[in-house]
Amino acid sequence: MAAKYQTTHEVAYYECDINQTMTFPAMLSVAIKASEEQSEQLDRGATVIGGYGLSWIITSYHILVTRLPKVGEQIQVVTQAKEYNKFFCYRYFWLLDDQGNELVKIEAVFALMNPETRKVSSVPDEIVAPYGSVKIKRIKRYPKIEPITEGRSLPYRVRFYDIDSNQHVNNAIYFNWLLDVLGHDFLTKHLVQEVTIRFDREVAYGNLIDSHVQINEALTLDTGEVRPLQTLHEIKIADVTYCEAVFTWQER
Amino acid sequence: MAAKYQTTHEVAYYECDINQTMTFPAMLSVAIKASEEQSEQLDRGATVIGGYGLSWIITSYHILVTRLPKVGEQIQVVTQAKEYNKFFCYRYFWLLDDQGNELVKIEAVFALMNPETRKVSSVPDEIVAPYGSVKIKRIKRYPKIEPITEGRSLPYRVRFYDIDSNQHVNNAIYFNWLLDVLGHDFLTKHLVQEVTIRFDREVAYGNLIDSHVQINEALTLDTGEVRPLQTLHEIKIADVTYCEAVFTWQER
Repeated sequence: MAAKYQTTHEVAYYECDINQTMTFPAMLSVAIKASEEQSEQLDRGATVIGGYGLSWIITSYHILVTRLPKVGEQIQVVTQAKEYNKFFCYRYFWLLDDQGNELVKIEAVFALMNPETRKVSSVPDEIVAPYGSVKIKRIKRYPKIEPITEGRSLPYRVRFYDIDSNQHVNNAIYFNWLLDVLGHDFLTKHLVQEVTIRFDREVAYGNLIDSHVQINEALTLDTGEVRPLQTLHEIKIADVTYCEAVFTWQER
Repeated sequence: MAAKYQTTHEVAYYECDINQTMTFPAMLSVAIKASEEQSEQLDRGATVIGGYGLSWIITSYHILVTRLPKVGEQIQVVTQAKEYNKFFCYRYFWLLDDQGNELVKIEAVFALMNPETRKVSSVPDEIVAPYGSVKIKRIKRYPKIEPITEGRSLPYRVRFYDIDSNQHVNNAIYFNWLLDVLGHDFLTKHLVQEVTIRFDREVAYGNLIDSHVQINEALTLDTGEVRPLQTLHEIKIADVTYCEAVFTWQER
């Protein structure tokens, strides 16, 4: 079984929004830091991967939220590089309360890219061996992200401080663009339950992106099934899509 | 003598920019967190101050940089609420390397405000007593911030995630607006040495602010004195100034 790595984290005031709960950028930053620590411990840090002429990219997240961590809370951050196939590695993260109850579960899909050619590489077995990841045949499927048919949008410019020390626009920044467009009222009156996000292309410093959103209100279908409130999201530059997401919400 | 509070911090990859060094927002967040921890320890946390119908605001920072903390570095964060007069409290922060050498020194000027009337209050002695702060008569002066005579600017919208769990636009966010306008080339070719920043008014969610900058190249005066490269900054909404700053730089 794949090795688990565990660390603890105290949620700081600046990692939380007005709702007094941790933001997605903060949760993902803490999660990725834990995976980097595990990689260093297993001698698979960025320098070693760089020796193969490769670097990790994240192509999608699937996130389930039971309860968002609160200001001042002591949480446990657990991660496990569970499975991989020819091109993708599936890493799980759990944010737990101090009793070990699951608060947030994050499934992240990693791939290896040659930073010069920008081409995705197959995953060498020896890179993942120390993690004890299980090799699987299939490619995992996540909830479908429907295209936006009737949305609105706001523009965002990629700023110098959106690029982190890994030389990329920090994945976490996309969450700010995706959610800010929903506005203060929506974001203080709803609780997130589930997120699926896919990164299609990399945005670069100086780009002007548009964050599009469509709100699909909750409704009861003819079958009696209740479809929850969902928001569909697209980050675009002109007609080209760079990132797509679907969020499921409940009333606060 | 005023009590010192000390904690340690490991600099995370997401707290650093492409220069591999810690950003101002990250440094200030870590510093303010240390001061909040000290206040809790001394029973002067936000709830106690709130009991007086007051809350802390920061009116200015004066920062001296010897060397910015690096990705992965273990730093010590030391803080001391050193002095106060009728309206202002002077708190110092030091970021030290693991040998105790000073990397960054931050002097912050705090004031107490009634959050409802937005009026500044005089500082009750019993609020500062546990810190052991020394009462002084004089008001401290910091380097003058010259007005911009010939600048350029970029617009920034105040986003939902610019407001932190303290219900204010996080002070640290101003640094992103102030510096982003300098652009990638400037920010990768220069090292900051000194910062003086003054907050005049509070911006609010949804505001569209303009970040103005003027670059004064280094020059040798007739007296032989060398004036270093300086940048002058103003955050404005229309003609009203919300924040002013001066940064001193050297070539990297």
